[in-house]
Amino acid sequence: MSDPMTLNQRIVLASRPVGAPTPENFRMERVALPDLADGQVLLKTIFLSLDPYMRGRMSDAPSYAAPVEIGEVMTGGAVSRVERSLNPKFQEGDLVVGATGWQSHSINDGRSIIPIPALPSPSMALGVLGMPGMTAYMGLMDIGQPKAGETLVVAAASGAVGSVVGQVAKIKGLRVVGVAGGADKCRYVVDELGFDACIDHKSADFADELAQACPKGIDIYYENVGGKVFDAVVPLLNPKARIPLCGLIASYNAHEAPSGPDRLPLLQRTLLTKRVRIQGFIVFDDYGDRQPEFLSAMAPWVRDGKVKFREDVVDGLEQAPDAFIGLLEGRNFGKLVVRVSRD
Amino acid sequence: MSDPMTLNQRIVLASRPVGAPTPENFRMERVALPDLADGQVLLKTIFLSLDPYMRGRMSDAPSYAAPVEIGEVMTGGAVSRVERSLNPKFQEGDLVVGATGWQSHSINDGRSIIPIPALPSPSMALGVLGMPGMTAYMGLMDIGQPKAGETLVVAAASGAVGSVVGQVAKIKGLRVVGVAGGADKCRYVVDELGFDACIDHKSADFADELAQACPKGIDIYYENVGGKVFDAVVPLLNPKARIPLCGLIASYNAHEAPSGPDRLPLLQRTLLTKRVRIQGFIVFDDYGDRQPEFLSAMAPWVRDGKVKFREDVVDGLEQAPDAFIGLLEGRNFGKLVVRVSRD
Repeated sequence: MSDPMTLNQRIVLASRPVGAPTPENFRMERVALPDLADGQVLLKTIFLSLDPYMRGRMSDAPSYAAPVEIGEVMTGGAVSRVERSLNPKFQEGDLVVGATGWQSHSINDGRSIIPIPALPSPSMALGVLGMPGMTAYMGLMDIGQPKAGETLVVAAASGAVGSVVGQVAKIKGLRVVGVAGGADKCRYVVDELGFDACIDHKSADFADELAQACPKGIDIYYENVGGKVFDAVVPLLNPKARIPLCGLIASYNAHEAPSGPDRLPLLQRTLLTKRVRIQGFIVFDDYGDRQPEFLSAMAPWVRDGKVKFREDVVDGLEQAPDAFIGLLEGRNFGKLVVRVSRD
Repeated sequence: MSDPMTLNQRIVLASRPVGAPTPENFRMERVALPDLADGQVLLKTIFLSLDPYMRGRMSDAPSYAAPVEIGEVMTGGAVSRVERSLNPKFQEGDLVVGATGWQSHSINDGRSIIPIPALPSPSMALGVLGMPGMTAYMGLMDIGQPKAGETLVVAAASGAVGSVVGQVAKIKGLRVVGVAGGADKCRYVVDELGFDACIDHKSADFADELAQACPKGIDIYYENVGGKVFDAVVPLLNPKARIPLCGLIASYNAHEAPSGPDRLPLLQRTLLTKRVRIQGFIVFDDYGDRQPEFLSAMAPWVRDGKVKFREDVVDGLEQAPDAFIGLLEGRNFGKLVVRVSRD
């Protein structure tokens, strides 16, 4: 059987960035999709997730995942609707989530997509109930080992991961101090998300203000940024502090070893004398089997308003490169998603 | 009752070192000990342990333990014999271990010394069955989580900690690669201790030789040195590698932040992309309650020759400063102890 031809709009990697990505690193293409084979489904992308880890995939430096090749579709998680199905497990109209990439349509054999339940907005499957939410939850709970009365600091506190880290830590009884860029984000973090304090990393007195907000030191630093926030945190770490490390957005655009001073010896000495644990993790590699545990904790919190979230929705696939460049600069405010289709 | 006067020979901290310690940082004194009070015991030091951590106590930089004050007796663990006892728990002639310091005699209320059993040499209570042995065992087992077939690297492989780390890892079925300074130490590590390989860190091709000795990468790096060994290890780390961190002797004498390049971003990126765990620990603070577990594992291994040890014995308390300076330079070969008294 021949399909009516579907025209796919897709964004491919045109060239590898040196430093910060530019629009020239991306290219929009329109191509006809092949016919569906038996067992396949045709997906129409509704929401595309934009996340900092994608910067790593644009480079061919050794990493935990293979790079996107030049000319290949940019990688990314998305919520899609099943448009046609030659797979008995999926029906037309089903909503699914999967790493289907920066494109308007995709063809899938059904093995790398999973159905999502009814949600107030399907984009939640890309944020608070998806990869960023699970990253926040597993890193905090498994590596952070939060205890009531302790102090937690998290950067990018208004973002997809940081906002969940802080709210879950509040539920667990910790003092929670966020770090964010600008007064608007800081106000949101304290007034809406309920953090105890939020420090603007653009402040000239950032390190002093962070110290004042942490009078009992820092027991957990949830690291999703790197850079100068880390430097201000290190002297405040308490004995037996834990540092879950899920991202380093501040250094993703770096393309050469920074000049000195060499900060490694100080970190090593702090790890030793304060008996600190620092541990990197990749959520689905390390905790993929614990998704049911995550969802059974998080879904009720979200439903009951104990964990709030904010989305920064950009309209149109063609806006994805610019929105992604802005994400790396901290321009977004909340979980960044692209609405690829309105129908 | 008046005691016959006991003259105590002791070494005090004369001044704080800037960089490597020099003989001028120490001063030998002879003082009369006060009379014994009720509940006290008079101890005569037999063996004094010299360990890298003592360098930290000579500085007043913030650390996990209070510094030795100027004019105070240098801190240190030792095996002593009870000379006189006004404490019902101790009898004349008992051997005990405790942090009694760099001196020929000490007075103790009995609460910070523990009796030691009959051993081939009482100095074993300062090495393989004491603090260094327990440091090796707990860091390897609790943080390292060794699994048969994995590859472990340990530096200072002929030393008090490294030698035990590697031998226990061999018992657990790992491939074990040591790093040591010079051909004699490397030969001993392979031929006597049974490591699979040992690389001389003085070799011009050190990083390449280490890589060749670890064809399957590194799963555990037991860090007790820091410096360039760490740099050579980082690129070889496997996903989910573990780094127990018990010491940084290579940087103990540093007194200013080293010039660049800044190695911290590379380490952070490695921790993230390889999902590495690095954790500092202080053996008695973190694992003090697990001493029975350690002794019940280690004592039979030592008795049966499965864990061998080597001591570097220096004669006379007055030699302690020079021997300690040499320890920081890697001049010792085996666990360094000072024989303070022959009777």
